[in-house]
Amino acid sequence: MAAEFKPMRSLIYVNLAKEDYRHKLLHWLHRYHVQDSISQFDPYVSKYAFYQALPVPQDGERFGTVKMQLTEHYWLLNPFTPDTKVKTLTEYFPMDVLKWQGNIPDDNVNDEQLDGDSARSSGGNNGLPPFMFAFVPVWWEEDFKGSNRTVEDGPNYRWQCTIRYPEGVLVEEGDKWLFEEVIPKFKEMPEVTRILTSKIMKEVNNCPYYRVMEMWFDGPSSWHKCAVENTKDIKKPDWASQESFPYLESGFEIQSIFLTDIAYSDNLTQHRGWITMR
Amino acid sequence: MAAEFKPMRSLIYVNLAKEDYRHKLLHWLHRYHVQDSISQFDPYVSKYAFYQALPVPQDGERFGTVKMQLTEHYWLLNPFTPDTKVKTLTEYFPMDVLKWQGNIPDDNVNDEQLDGDSARSSGGNNGLPPFMFAFVPVWWEEDFKGSNRTVEDGPNYRWQCTIRYPEGVLVEEGDKWLFEEVIPKFKEMPEVTRILTSKIMKEVNNCPYYRVMEMWFDGPSSWHKCAVENTKDIKKPDWASQESFPYLESGFEIQSIFLTDIAYSDNLTQHRGWITMR
Amino acid sequence: MAAEFKPMRSLIYVNLAKEDYRHKLLHWLHRYHVQDSISQFDPYVSKYAFYQALPVPQDGERFGTVKMQLTEHYWLLNPFTPDTKVKTLTEYFPMDVLKWQGNIPDDNVNDEQLDGDSARSSGGNNGLPPFMFAFVPVWWEEDFKGSNRTVEDGPNYRWQCTIRYPEGVLVEEGDKWLFEEVIPKFKEMPEVTRILTSKIMKEVNNCPYYRVMEMWFDGPSSWHKCAVENTKDIKKPDWASQESFPYLESGFEIQSIFLTDIAYSDNLTQHRGWITMR
Amino acid sequence: MAAEFKPMRSLIYVNLAKEDYRHKLLHWLHRYHVQDSISQFDPYVSKYAFYQALPVPQDGERFGTVKMQLTEHYWLLNPFTPDTKVKTLTEYFPMDVLKWQGNIPDDNVNDEQLDGDSARSSGGNNGLPPFMFAFVPVWWEEDFKGSNRTVEDGPNYRWQCTIRYPEGVLVEEGDKWLFEEVIPKFKEMPEVTRILTSKIMKEVNNCPYYRVMEMWFDGPSSWHKCAVENTKDIKKPDWASQESFPYLESGFEIQSIFLTDIAYSDNLTQHRGWITMR
Amino acid sequence: MAAEFKPMRSLIYVNLAKEDYRHKLLHWLHRYHVQDSISQFDPYVSKYAFYQALPVPQDGERFGTVKMQLTEHYWLLNPFTPDTKVKTLTEYFPMDVLKWQGNIPDDNVNDEQLDGDSARSSGGNNGLPPFMFAFVPVWWEEDFKGSNRTVEDGPNYRWQCTIRYPEGVLVEEGDKWLFEEVIPKFKEMPEVTRILTSKIMKEVNNCPYYRVMEMWFDGPSSWHKCAVENTKDIKKPDWASQESFPYLESGFEIQSIFLTDIAYSDNLTQHRGWITMR
Amino acid sequence: MAAEFKPMRSLIYVNLAKEDYRHKLLHWLHRYHVQDSISQFDPYVSKYAFYQALPVPQDGERFGTVKMQLTEHYWLLNPFTPDTKVKTLTEYFPMDVLKWQGNIPDDNVNDEQLDGDSARSSGGNNGLPPFMFAFVPVWWEEDFKGSNRTVEDGPNYRWQCTIRYPEGVLVEEGDKWLFEEVIPKFKEMPEVTRILTSKIMKEVNNCPYYRVMEMWFDGPSSWHKCAVENTKDIKKPDWASQESFPYLESGFEIQSIFLTDIAYSDNLTQHRGWITMR
Repeated sequence: MAAEFKPMRSLIYVNLAKEDYRHKLLHWLHRYHVQDSISQFDPYVSKYAFYQALPVPQDGERFGTVKMQLTEHYWLLNPFTPDTKVKTLTEYFPMDVLKWQGNIPDDNVNDEQLDGDSARSSGGNNGLPPFMFAFVPVWWEEDFKGSNRTVEDGPNYRWQCTIRYPEGVLVEEGDKWLFEEVIPKFKEMPEVTRILTSKIMKEVNNCPYYRVMEMWFDGPSSWHKCAVENTKDIKKPDWASQESFPYLESGFEIQSIFLTDIAYSDNLTQHRGWITMR
Repeated sequence: MAAEFKPMRSLIYVNLAKEDYRHKLLHWLHRYHVQDSISQFDPYVSKYAFYQALPVPQDGERFGTVKMQLTEHYWLLNPFTPDTKVKTLTEYFPMDVLKWQGNIPDDNVNDEQLDGDSARSSGGNNGLPPFMFAFVPVWWEEDFKGSNRTVEDGPNYRWQCTIRYPEGVLVEEGDKWLFEEVIPKFKEMPEVTRILTSKIMKEVNNCPYYRVMEMWFDGPSSWHKCAVENTKDIKKPDWASQESFPYLESGFEIQSIFLTDIAYSDNLTQHRGWITMR
Repeated sequence: MAAEFKPMRSLIYVNLAKEDYRHKLLHWLHRYHVQDSISQFDPYVSKYAFYQALPVPQDGERFGTVKMQLTEHYWLLNPFTPDTKVKTLTEYFPMDVLKWQGNIPDDNVNDEQLDGDSARSSGGNNGLPPFMFAFVPVWWEEDFKGSNRTVEDGPNYRWQCTIRYPEGVLVEEGDKWLFEEVIPKFKEMPEVTRILTSKIMKEVNNCPYYRVMEMWFDGPSSWHKCAVENTKDIKKPDWASQESFPYLESGFEIQSIFLTDIAYSDNLTQHRGWITMR
Repeated sequence: MAAEFKPMRSLIYVNLAKEDYRHKLLHWLHRYHVQDSISQFDPYVSKYAFYQALPVPQDGERFGTVKMQLTEHYWLLNPFTPDTKVKTLTEYFPMDVLKWQGNIPDDNVNDEQLDGDSARSSGGNNGLPPFMFAFVPVWWEEDFKGSNRTVEDGPNYRWQCTIRYPEGVLVEEGDKWLFEEVIPKFKEMPEVTRILTSKIMKEVNNCPYYRVMEMWFDGPSSWHKCAVENTKDIKKPDWASQESFPYLESGFEIQSIFLTDIAYSDNLTQHRGWITMR
Repeated sequence: MAAEFKPMRSLIYVNLAKEDYRHKLLHWLHRYHVQDSISQFDPYVSKYAFYQALPVPQDGERFGTVKMQLTEHYWLLNPFTPDTKVKTLTEYFPMDVLKWQGNIPDDNVNDEQLDGDSARSSGGNNGLPPFMFAFVPVWWEEDFKGSNRTVEDGPNYRWQCTIRYPEGVLVEEGDKWLFEEVIPKFKEMPEVTRILTSKIMKEVNNCPYYRVMEMWFDGPSSWHKCAVENTKDIKKPDWASQESFPYLESGFEIQSIFLTDIAYSDNLTQHRGWITMR
Repeated sequence: MAAEFKPMRSLIYVNLAKEDYRHKLLHWLHRYHVQDSISQFDPYVSKYAFYQALPVPQDGERFGTVKMQLTEHYWLLNPFTPDTKVKTLTEYFPMDVLKWQGNIPDDNVNDEQLDGDSARSSGGNNGLPPFMFAFVPVWWEEDFKGSNRTVEDGPNYRWQCTIRYPEGVLVEEGDKWLFEEVIPKFKEMPEVTRILTSKIMKEVNNCPYYRVMEMWFDGPSSWHKCAVENTKDIKKPDWASQESFPYLESGFEIQSIFLTDIAYSDNLTQHRGWITMR
């Protein structure tokens, strides 16, 4: 069966279990993983970038905010079809990486080498949040506010999150709440400059999340005003998994990342190897 | 609906209303527009280049010759489908740009910000020539002369033009004239080293032009000899819009650009930002 | 007819008729051919790399081993459809190149300029081995050994070969021998760290070869031990074209190349023109 | 007077007054400042890199730890001689930047445009720490521990600091304390893998600091054990400016930054302009 | 004798004898000369850029305005010492190039190959203007207006010229006129945004010119208003070589070039070889 | 003491003990050594390139021909002064590398990690040829033939060698023989297209060799005709260390390398990390 053209974007939220691991994770990412990844998918990935996660804002924990980075790919085809199974070299992926990322418990690591695809479907069933790896369309599906924003309008503080509704809630029901209760509320707040959302293509890699959303603010204080203070009067839905907005279980039903406008490494054009500081 | 694979080349002829605007247009192109464009379409454009327009040769005006540059893209998909509508950031595109390019009158500019797609369909109905933005196949459709030419044969003076036949003329009728009267004439001139043509894919963006053509010469003097002097005995068709060859209304039924062999900026690989002269 | 999305990898084995030609072939490749090639296929080729052929190991001649380089492309579409026929410039391809590569006899060269596609289908019918140009799937079809190998496992000595079975042997019959006699034998040798194979997509360019195979070793001595010494007890098939393993006619039914792990030039990202030594 | 060859490294510690400013400072750095800087000094700067500051570790505040980044240049000549005074374009440097960096008070900003050199000598006399801009030799002057460390020894958690001794303390006296009390203590701790120090070239730009030092650890926990816990028994010198080690006034007599091994942008080779996220 | 550190900038004004030669000159520059040049001086040139000459403005001819480009180098050392004499390969420099540049008469060309240094000292004594190749300090020596101009102040129309005073006029005398009559006049015109000047380092390569100057305007119309119209009342000096300002012999005592803010090719970082248009 | 400006070129001849080591040496060079080296000397090295050694021609062994590559640096300063002693990280340089390069015996290797400078002064006193690491002027000192050769004259087969005269022979005496017997002989051979030589700057790193020389040919056959056959009548000097020309002890008094025109990796601009083949 021939490979189909299927341009998609994928989003990986890389978390950090503790600060003792940040430079170790960076070392693995830049010394091994970028090079392994480019080697493997260069012919069918058209963009591969790392975006630094901004520090967790006040009360960001209840939104499942990750601390390390967003890894983004643009694919020309679906990399999870039977055709694509054989890899000439497998990625160097020691189990420690999952510990550093908070996908497996800190005390349960052996020196196993994993294959990347197994690694990227870890977590979720072990008390720790799942590895967030979602495929989405190349263009956002819905645009609720700010479509005329340009680079001359200044820097943006971007809140991106992926959500799923609790077990037993129909997506139509959840979306009705999101589109009729939540988004209109944010849309009318003057601090919110942009609102975008798309459904996640769950069929690609069985991602546990259902929808990705992005809202932009002037900075963490205005985010806090909007997402924490102004949301106190959004009525708690029957199916709420936590007491406060976003009413979803942090890390399991919602993961968030705070971003600025540019990648800190556009790997296909900027990576040059492990050139250390002098 | 899934995006279809549709490799296409697009051609934009950037004109210049007067010399007072050349450096202003360059400033907008290189400081804002290249970066905006790469940000937007990097994942599905495989080449994006700027080619400097050579100065208008003698009598070039009657061929609708533009003065600034050719902007060329190679697309992997059609960027004008409903799927592609939402852009995370819109291009910074002040209305002045259209004035500088000669697509709107010099005295009718406010400080409006446009979206790029509207801007790129301006002109044509306001007394000024339309913005020339044509999609064509990746490979030329027809090759009439010079298929064995290589880089070792020396530099080329390339005349590229896009045409449409006057209102009321059937394309079959127009092409009959072009293929039986015009091209054979040029083909037998020894100064002409290459003749290529393709039909424009009007369905993509409703381009007003119908066909693109390229002929190569040793330089502007040999172009003039061929296209101006030698064409005096090409019989004027009934439907002629001007007295002389090309018998098409300059700027409206024909736009031309004179090019040399290479891009002055292959933006995806060469752009580095707005690095000014010291 | 619209171009279809057809991601493929192609492999060209560049041989060398004698050492007097090595720097001449390098000169043509780097001063003319890379630039011509990028000019032509940049919009639809996603990777274009040169890998240096390691020196022919002891007894490598009977495996049809080439001496110059592997040229590898990754295509987004089939470059041999009617759509793609017209090239704006044809490649500069003097007939000498085929002489240097050993595809035409040393003494039968005129100063003809060839087009690239004719050049790349030369040889085979003139007493000299055919130009080896094969299209294969982007991912290997079958993986017999070593799927968990990573970059941390050290450098690899890679034997890649393309084969066809002798005239009159059914591919099913040949493959049965390969899969049941040959590969199991290699698989059990501890020196062999990786075994991969795919069928060649003969329909693309009428490649005379049928299958590509890759086996990895610690170096030429361990290759010799495995491929020459250990294969002495692989029974000679009825259809054998030579007395010893691989039992295929060197250069005609088998061509081999020995490679290390990386390209010496990833042309799309690393080529900078003909910058000579000082 | 002719420019003298004077290879030097310079270090700028970029702080952040509050998190509301992080993405604003990044926007200015990457959209304006990198391009302005390359434009200005490209002909005589051989390396220009940004290193992300790791988050402030526990008790890091008392070491004057900055939160944003290290900006590093390697110069071929002294950029502060009379010869170098005229700049064709001056850097775009709004006063807000100093507010964001914590060099001027938050509430005392007008919309003045500064020249870069004035900006880089701000702070210190207004209740806020001085802008840390130090010139040092290209090679470290003294190497106390770990000279055989290689990239294969793993990632490093690097503590870099610049210090000056309090008003009235002779540098010989201060250094005696540093070299005889402090460094030997650290040298014997097994967690410390590397110790390096140089004197700052104060004559270049009148830097208020006297010495730069670098010590490497396995991570922030081992840094804390060494620099906070293990230093409790380093006797407080008579001239101490604070109660605990490092006994220097945080932000004024000591500034620190925590770094990992690589730059997040090697600007001369990796900067591509303001390419935003889609 | 050891090479001395001598950072310098050099300026070459490339003219064009007629439009029939523009694409031929571009072909030679980009296909041969950039590559030859980088090969030769890469180890001791830190920047090498081409800036497009803007079209000659109205009355620009009397200022000796060139039509092709500015070639700029930044050198780390003087390339004209005895040490530097031997070149491994000499530049490919056919005599035609001097004809295309207008340095030798159109009808007096044989097929001689020149060495680059001879070529670059051609003209001046044959009725045609000399090849303008001047060495200047890295930083401008004098800054008369606009020192606080930044990139945010918008695009600049830059008039750069090199002058010498007529035979028999002392430079002190000429400069007195320039500094007391000419520059103050321009300084008070509101259209002039920047005035810079330096003396040429004639000792390096015996350049016939004495001084370089740069003035910036909003565009060619404001340049014309300032340099042609407003200068009518600058008193003609006794030694004037032409009737009107600049009172210097066009092409011999003054050469001018009109530039915008950026290079069209920063050759060391952007050149990729002769990649032609498709 | 301040670093002096001292532009120099250095040449390292990398040999190969046996073919089993070629891909291992390449792995170490490209996965570790290039990155270590750039990290260390990027601020003061202006070019760093690898040139592939062409295969040893017939009888090349008696000229001490190496088999792997030429490593070339251009330095802005002397990297062997006391100032430059401290390195932040030392190069990863396992002793195996010296074994692979044939600088220490095959059977005498432990798993020691060396520092690079010790490694680069190995060999010579252990029965094996010394590591050839020579500093030479940036420009060749003497040019005997072919100074007008350009890239248009075609590819070059370059023989580069470093020599020293036997113990007890004065350099004046040796050079007299070289300049009066050897070079004139080669100069008159029509196959020799270029002759260049410089003295090695032995004071920099105590290089055992005295002089470097380069002669160019059409290929290995013409080299053999010139250097082996035509030299039979060069009288053997009294001090000859071997029976035939070059009369110097192979590997100890002469080392040779055969090169083509371009680098296979210009590391500062082309290295991208360890991107493996798929």
